[in-house]
Amino acid sequence: MKNELVSRFSMSLPPALLKQLDEMSGDKGYDNRSQAIADMIRDRLVEHRQKFGSEEICGTITLVYDHHKPHLQATLTDIQHDYHDVILSTVHVHLDHHNCLEVLLVRGKAALVRKIADELISAKGVKHGKLTVTTTGKDLPS
Amino acid sequence: MKNELVSRFSMSLPPALLKQLDEMSGDKGYDNRSQAIADMIRDRLVEHRQKFGSEEICGTITLVYDHHKPHLQATLTDIQHDYHDVILSTVHVHLDHHNCLEVLLVRGKAALVRKIADELISAKGVKHGKLTVTTTGKDLPS
Amino acid sequence: MKNELVSRFSMSLPPALLKQLDEMSGDKGYDNRSQAIADMIRDRLVEHRQKFGSEEICGTITLVYDHHKPHLQATLTDIQHDYHDVILSTVHVHLDHHNCLEVLLVRGKAALVRKIADELISAKGVKHGKLTVTTTGKDLPS
Amino acid sequence: MKNELVSRFSMSLPPALLKQLDEMSGDKGYDNRSQAIADMIRDRLVEHRQKFGSEEICGTITLVYDHHKPHLQATLTDIQHDYHDVILSTVHVHLDHHNCLEVLLVRGKAALVRKIADELISAKGVKHGKLTVTTTGKDLPS
Repeated sequence: MKNELVSRFSMSLPPALLKQLDEMSGDKGYDNRSQAIADMIRDRLVEHRQKFGSEEICGTITLVYDHHKPHLQATLTDIQHDYHDVILSTVHVHLDHHNCLEVLLVRGKAALVRKIADELISAKGVKHGKLTVTTTGKDLPS
Repeated sequence: MKNELVSRFSMSLPPALLKQLDEMSGDKGYDNRSQAIADMIRDRLVEHRQKFGSEEICGTITLVYDHHKPHLQATLTDIQHDYHDVILSTVHVHLDHHNCLEVLLVRGKAALVRKIADELISAKGVKHGKLTVTTTGKDLPS
Repeated sequence: MKNELVSRFSMSLPPALLKQLDEMSGDKGYDNRSQAIADMIRDRLVEHRQKFGSEEICGTITLVYDHHKPHLQATLTDIQHDYHDVILSTVHVHLDHHNCLEVLLVRGKAALVRKIADELISAKGVKHGKLTVTTTGKDLPS
Repeated sequence: MKNELVSRFSMSLPPALLKQLDEMSGDKGYDNRSQAIADMIRDRLVEHRQKFGSEEICGTITLVYDHHKPHLQATLTDIQHDYHDVILSTVHVHLDHHNCLEVLLVRGKAALVRKIADELISAKGVKHGKLTVTTTGKDLPS
């Protein structure tokens, strides 16, 4: 992307914070400071927008559970089929004889996605669950 | 804090991103752009310093990007093949003609998983990336 | 791949068969006849090798079933966890309120993969199941 | 069949593939290479002619390829984004430093699914590709 348009501006930070920013950017492999800061802004924008429930978001719901727990898997599957329009697909990894890692890819209105995540994560027997929200990419410049 | 020492520097952002940053900063009640960015940096530093050690974790790395960005997809795939022992599988959803949602399921030592996530998320052109850490289930009673 | 080495040889076919081959190759979007025939040979080699049970293969097991069938999902998950070393991951798509499409990505000795597929496909309530065998890519020139 | 009319033409294959073809043809008891290839062509024609109409099907497209092949991955992703309404999701497994197993879950009109599969499988550099057709479950009693 040669002729990509950018806006240039100046800003100020406490010197110690600037130093730590540069160290972290180096650790993470960013080419320059602007790129590292741009990534933080995009991350914060994604977060900020999910507060407004009707915004369309993408995300993942990550679940770890023991599939031998009675009724658990049937419960999780029933919930998922109720929302099959929102759940794009579910990947299941058989971690060992007992434990499952199940990751759902979801796309829908933020409030609905959050509701589905809450129902799944609160199901009795789920060891750990997490909703990760990201963007559909449409409204976020790269 | 009148006489606080500050370091002044200039940076550049895509104009659309700068505009969205300023709107969000206004929404959140920040007096100026530098203050809003300083807060993001501090937040990211806290996260960055979290201990990621040699214990085995499971997790997901969620990426949203435009697959038309030159070299981006090749870069992401090269990184993933370098760590094919840690990446269990990668699910790719074609969100629209441009945007991809790519979710990697990972299992490995926490520090290594964090390193892989950093490499992928900092790749130029990734709009949003996130590491979500969960458990292998072994050491966690339900 | 500019200087790719090729072996040139001549062969003969009944004229009608050659004509139909060329029509099909055109339909399928091949650039030339050699490429279309090379793909058939590779496909046949993959098939041929799976007869030898200890050869390592990759593949998918595709299942369609109604998750409301009593015990079916528990049975399928139990079988999958028994072979969690062979099953790389399982993707589940919630087709509608009743029907599931479940695709397992597998890698292992041909005879074992076939045994797992047979167990899953023959489970009472599975509407349709299919084992698709492919290669690990290692022993197949492109 | 002495005086059968044949068309003679020359073609080229990677030397390693030619060697493996000849070994397999010997194993299978073919008298010559042309005969072995003729059989493959006939088999493929039968498959190709299967009715693929306007009924809705589910299926998987399984691809194995070396992601280092120039332009291959970009080509495959471009095709997939053109049909993002049909491709539910794509799972990618990083088999080793070179080889990828990519499995697409698809749902759409049979003829369109077949067309997408043909485009992907015939892309130069794909080592092995296969379309597996299954049902949406709706019209199939268990």
